[in-house]
Amino acid sequence: MTGTAPAPFTADDYRARMERAARAAADAGLTGLLVAPGPDLVWLTGYAPPAETERLTLLVLVPGRDPVLVVPALEAPDAAKASGAPGLTLRDWTDGKDPYAATAALLEAEPLGRFGISDNAWALHLLALQRALPGTSYAALSDALPMLRAVKDAAELELLAAAGAAADATFEEIRKVPFGGRRESEVAADLADLLRRFGHSQVDFTIVASGPNGANPHHEVGDRLIERGDMVVLDFGGLKDGYGSDTSRTVHVGEPIDEERRVHDLVRAAQQAGFSAVRPGVACQEVDRAARAVIADAGYGEYFIHRTGHGIGVTTHEPPYMIEGEEQPLVPGMCFSVEPGVYLPGRFGVRIEDIVTVTEDGGRRLNDTTRELVIVD
Amino acid sequence: MTGTAPAPFTADDYRARMERAARAAADAGLTGLLVAPGPDLVWLTGYAPPAETERLTLLVLVPGRDPVLVVPALEAPDAAKASGAPGLTLRDWTDGKDPYAATAALLEAEPLGRFGISDNAWALHLLALQRALPGTSYAALSDALPMLRAVKDAAELELLAAAGAAADATFEEIRKVPFGGRRESEVAADLADLLRRFGHSQVDFTIVASGPNGANPHHEVGDRLIERGDMVVLDFGGLKDGYGSDTSRTVHVGEPIDEERRVHDLVRAAQQAGFSAVRPGVACQEVDRAARAVIADAGYGEYFIHRTGHGIGVTTHEPPYMIEGEEQPLVPGMCFSVEPGVYLPGRFGVRIEDIVTVTEDGGRRLNDTTRELVIVD
Repeated sequence: MTGTAPAPFTADDYRARMERAARAAADAGLTGLLVAPGPDLVWLTGYAPPAETERLTLLVLVPGRDPVLVVPALEAPDAAKASGAPGLTLRDWTDGKDPYAATAALLEAEPLGRFGISDNAWALHLLALQRALPGTSYAALSDALPMLRAVKDAAELELLAAAGAAADATFEEIRKVPFGGRRESEVAADLADLLRRFGHSQVDFTIVASGPNGANPHHEVGDRLIERGDMVVLDFGGLKDGYGSDTSRTVHVGEPIDEERRVHDLVRAAQQAGFSAVRPGVACQEVDRAARAVIADAGYGEYFIHRTGHGIGVTTHEPPYMIEGEEQPLVPGMCFSVEPGVYLPGRFGVRIEDIVTVTEDGGRRLNDTTRELVIVD
Repeated sequence: MTGTAPAPFTADDYRARMERAARAAADAGLTGLLVAPGPDLVWLTGYAPPAETERLTLLVLVPGRDPVLVVPALEAPDAAKASGAPGLTLRDWTDGKDPYAATAALLEAEPLGRFGISDNAWALHLLALQRALPGTSYAALSDALPMLRAVKDAAELELLAAAGAAADATFEEIRKVPFGGRRESEVAADLADLLRRFGHSQVDFTIVASGPNGANPHHEVGDRLIERGDMVVLDFGGLKDGYGSDTSRTVHVGEPIDEERRVHDLVRAAQQAGFSAVRPGVACQEVDRAARAVIADAGYGEYFIHRTGHGIGVTTHEPPYMIEGEEQPLVPGMCFSVEPGVYLPGRFGVRIEDIVTVTEDGGRRLNDTTRELVIVD
């Protein structure tokens, strides 16, 4: 993703987001925010630099001051074209000059400031700022303002729903293709083609994990020949119009044996329990607990080896996390995955995943293909 | 780039690189090195995680101790398949656990340590380590050990030469395609196709900057219709078998006017002067000065608005930099671009770029298409 974000937001939308972020920073006791290239910068300004390099690009947001984007001179013309640029002052710097002194001047505060900084800001830049302003302190944005992008507005929800519908359309097509006798990589290529055909500009993952590969939840795709009798975990998504999709279904090549069906039913029940736990005010960890309890009660607890879900927005992977210990209460407009799984080493895995958004009185799924075990050829 | 690196290196090669890096760290007064996912990790271990996420993956190299790779449990099976894995101890951690405490335990040193950390390590992780071990200090690897990957061995030089030859083959084909009446984006797509056809697995940039767009050195590509009479800057490259290519040529659609030819001749002379300055022991900045002097002497100094070059290896953009102030002496085996340019705002730009490697007694170009002004249709 480079250049300006494709989402249909105006300079005023970006101005409002920057103001909201600066206010949130002040509320969190921060002097301001330092935003590196990546999803936060895209969300706040619509600007995505052509490539992440060692050259400093940094948005400085301080409540009560105009937002400033520190940007390499070479990239300033592109930055000036971003949809959010009208709300920014560009401060460009030339190769060979020290960008940190100029940035430090923007950060000077009485008393010494404490800034939130993007999780993915480079250590190179953070260390240089720490050197330039020794008394200033920093907190990772996901620690200091984890929910900065978590609550989606109506336009964002519409884009997420459209991305989810495109992922669902992909599943409806992929279930018709032959699985048995083809390689995982071939089915994965089909998934990528379908996601693009249904409007995705970026494909982030196309997991096809067949048979024993399904027991490794992060197995992406390999050259394994899919066989009759395999369970196959499909987990795919990416960005459509700047917003993410992510869904998983587990299919079976031919008729399953009883245990396969039983484990699939179990994961389906766990996914339903996680979904049913979603409503405003409930802590994120309760979604995890609800799904996990179903699996643990059936004696498969040790085989559910990851958290239950993650947020989604301008990325396919962001806060809030549905995980034990996360006490953040759910708020209407939050969007995240509910994706329990069971992984039986050396044998097979099952995962079922929908994106869910929090409504005023519960949850709404943004994926709605069948959660029954689908038999494929 | 995910999974294991395609380059033909063995576990012993990676072991040797890790030992060399640990020794270099000790020589630089560092307690050890902390290497995040990215080019350093690929170079040291052959491991490239499937995606860069907020989950901590970190190689800990301390002289005299076995290298340890801290890795999320979900990704440990993939890490174990990396070519360099036999030389590593994997220390995996599970979602919900604190990976920083375990990592901090690996870093404890008497007296308190000073560690080099990858430039692109996430601020999130650095801040957590700073919190976990308050007395420990950190230096960005490009500051502390900028030349860690700079000197290429014979096998690496062969891979870089092959990538350069593939880029040259791309230029020989692209000069035959029609330019006038087509959009920059169409020619860029041709460049990407050709790079892939000639063996690139990853295309990093395909700059096609025609007419006035050529005066913005970072213009990537747009929808501008290329016209007869345009100068067109072409700058393209990527990774082939894990090693980078990067070359620029400026072509003209139809016959050029005198000034266009004169500026092109000037840049060619500057590029030749930069190349001729390359030999062991010469400071990087001398390469920049040599190229810049030619352009300044002709009165165009203010229009050469970037450094003269950058290193290349497992990335297309790394130290050493050919820039005023860089006193690092050239060493045989270093590889970098020599790419002066002249950018006349609103009119046109010219850039000519070759990858050059330092030999025992001078320099050798890894690109060798004509540097004369090529006329295209």
